[in-house]
Amino acid sequence: MYDIIIIGGGAAGMSAAIYAMRGGMKTLLLEKLSCGGQAANTYEVDNYPGFYNNPSGPQLMDAFEKHAEKFGVEIRSEAVREIINADGPVKTVKTRRNSYETKTIIIATGANPKKLGVEGETELAGSGVSYCATCDGAFFKGEDTVVIGGGNTAFEDALYLAGFCEHVFIMNRSKRFRASKTLVTKAKENPKITIYTDMIAEKFEGTQKLERIIAKNTETGEKGYINAAGVIIAIGITPDNMLAKACGIELCERGFIKTDMYLESSVNGIFAAGDCRVSPLRQIVTAAADGAVAATSAINHVLKGSV
Amino acid sequence: MYDIIIIGGGAAGMSAAIYAMRGGMKTLLLEKLSCGGQAANTYEVDNYPGFYNNPSGPQLMDAFEKHAEKFGVEIRSEAVREIINADGPVKTVKTRRNSYETKTIIIATGANPKKLGVEGETELAGSGVSYCATCDGAFFKGEDTVVIGGGNTAFEDALYLAGFCEHVFIMNRSKRFRASKTLVTKAKENPKITIYTDMIAEKFEGTQKLERIIAKNTETGEKGYINAAGVIIAIGITPDNMLAKACGIELCERGFIKTDMYLESSVNGIFAAGDCRVSPLRQIVTAAADGAVAATSAINHVLKGSV
Repeated sequence: MYDIIIIGGGAAGMSAAIYAMRGGMKTLLLEKLSCGGQAANTYEVDNYPGFYNNPSGPQLMDAFEKHAEKFGVEIRSEAVREIINADGPVKTVKTRRNSYETKTIIIATGANPKKLGVEGETELAGSGVSYCATCDGAFFKGEDTVVIGGGNTAFEDALYLAGFCEHVFIMNRSKRFRASKTLVTKAKENPKITIYTDMIAEKFEGTQKLERIIAKNTETGEKGYINAAGVIIAIGITPDNMLAKACGIELCERGFIKTDMYLESSVNGIFAAGDCRVSPLRQIVTAAADGAVAATSAINHVLKGSV
Repeated sequence: MYDIIIIGGGAAGMSAAIYAMRGGMKTLLLEKLSCGGQAANTYEVDNYPGFYNNPSGPQLMDAFEKHAEKFGVEIRSEAVREIINADGPVKTVKTRRNSYETKTIIIATGANPKKLGVEGETELAGSGVSYCATCDGAFFKGEDTVVIGGGNTAFEDALYLAGFCEHVFIMNRSKRFRASKTLVTKAKENPKITIYTDMIAEKFEGTQKLERIIAKNTETGEKGYINAAGVIIAIGITPDNMLAKACGIELCERGFIKTDMYLESSVNGIFAAGDCRVSPLRQIVTAAADGAVAATSAINHVLKGSV
C-alpha cells in the first residue's frame, strides 16, 4: 500500500516526488514514457529561476530526476489505464500489468500544445518554431516574429512580443477572431502588429533555424512568404485528462482539472499539479511549485485524513 | 515612468524580475537590505527542484540574482516608505530619497517567522533550530525532535516529523491548544509523539549544532532538558504588510495579502507574490512561481489594461 502515487514524471510530478519523499511517504511515480515531460522537448530554458546558464530542457529535467532519485523515489515506466475506487480511502491504480493500492493520488499528466501538422514544424521546433511566447519569445528580441492563431492567447502573445520584437505578424485562418474585442482592438492599434486573415501556414523553412514561413491565402489560393526568426503557434493546448475524466473528476470547459487552493480535485484524496490543471500560467517553475503544494496536501491527507 | 516596480528582492521578487525583463518591461526592483530574502538566511536548501546538491541559501539566492541581472533589471537598495495613488493608472512609490512612477506594482515583501527570543536561538539557527518543518524536517530523520507551539502548524509539523523522526516532543506554554481538536487527538494517538504542556524553552544548547533544549515548567518552576537534534519553532509567521495595509489592500485576518488566481490584490494594478500573500505553502519554489505569475499578470495589465 502506497501513501502517494504520482501519475506523470514531468516537472510537476518530479517536484511532488521530492516533497513526498522528504515527508517520509511511501511514494510511487508512474510515467508512461521517460521522465521529463514537455520540458524535456525544449531546446533551451531561459527562465527557470536560478538556472541562469540556459540549460537545455533535457539537462534541467535530468537535474529534477536526480533530485527526486536522491530521496529514493520508486519510478516505474508504466502507463496508467484506470483508477478504481477513486473516492475511497484505498484507491487502486491499474496499469497494463499491475495494480497498486494507494491512499492518495497526484495527477500530473500534463498537457500538449496543438500542432499545425505542416512541413518543417517538427524539424524546426525549438529552433524558431515555438508553442509558448512566455517561454521562448525573448529569444526573438529585435526580430520579426509570427503568431499563428486567432484566440485570446494568440493576441496576448502578439501584444507581448510587440514589446521587444521588430515586428509581429498575426496569421489567422479566417476573418473571424475568437479573441475578445478589446484584445483585437489593442492589436490593431499597435503599429508593430500586422494582422493577416484568411491565411494559413503551409511550410516552415530554414536550414539551422527558422528563416521563413510559406503561407497561403485561403480565399484567393495565392501563396507568399514571411521572413521571420520566430513563430509562436497559439492554436490551443490539450490537457491529458483521460484518467481524471474517467473517474468523474470535475473539469473546466476546456478540459483542465479544477482544484482548490490546496490543489485537491473534486474527488477526495486526488490532487492535480502542473499543466493538466486550471491555472493562470503554465511554466516549469509553476509546475514545480504545484508539485510541492500537491505533495504537501497529500501528506496532510495521509497524516490527518484531510488537507 | 516604469512599467513594473517590484518591492522586495527575495525569491518571489527576483523571479518576477526575470519574467518582467524577458517580457520587455521597464522594471525596477527595490530592496531595503540586500537581495535574497528569508532564503538567504538558510543554511542548506534541500528542496528547490533541480538544485540537487544542497546549495546554501545564499548560494541559491545568488543564482537567482545573477539570473535577474542577466536580463538587466535595475536593482536599488532603498526602503519603500509609501505608495501614493495606489489605485490610479500611474502609481507613485516613495522611498526616503526618491519617488518613482509606475503603471503596476508587485509587492513581494515576504514574511518572518516569530522568534522565541531565548538564548542560543540565533546562534543555532540553521544548525538544528528551524522555523519550517517542510523545509528542514528531513534533516532530522531518525533523530529526536521538538516542536514548540500549540497551534495547527505545530501539530501538523509534529505529525509530519513523526513519519520519519525517532520521536517528536511537542512543547506548549499552556494547557490549552489553539490547534483543532482533530489534530490534537491525532497527535495524542500517535505513539511517536509526546506532548508537554505548561512548558517553555529557556535555552538551546550545543557546540556545533543543537544538542539539547533547557526547558522550564511554568506551573512548578521545575527545570529539565530534552536531548534533541532538531527543534521546529512553530509559534507563528508575520507578513511584512505595512505598505499593503497603508494603501487599503485587502488582507486576511492573519494579515496576509488576499489575491485572485492571477495574484492581483484588491487594488487594480497591484499584485502580490511570495510569503506576504495568502497561500497554501511557503517555499522557495512557490515564491518563485508566484513571481512568474505576478509578473505575467502585470505585463498583461500594462499591455491591455487588465489581467
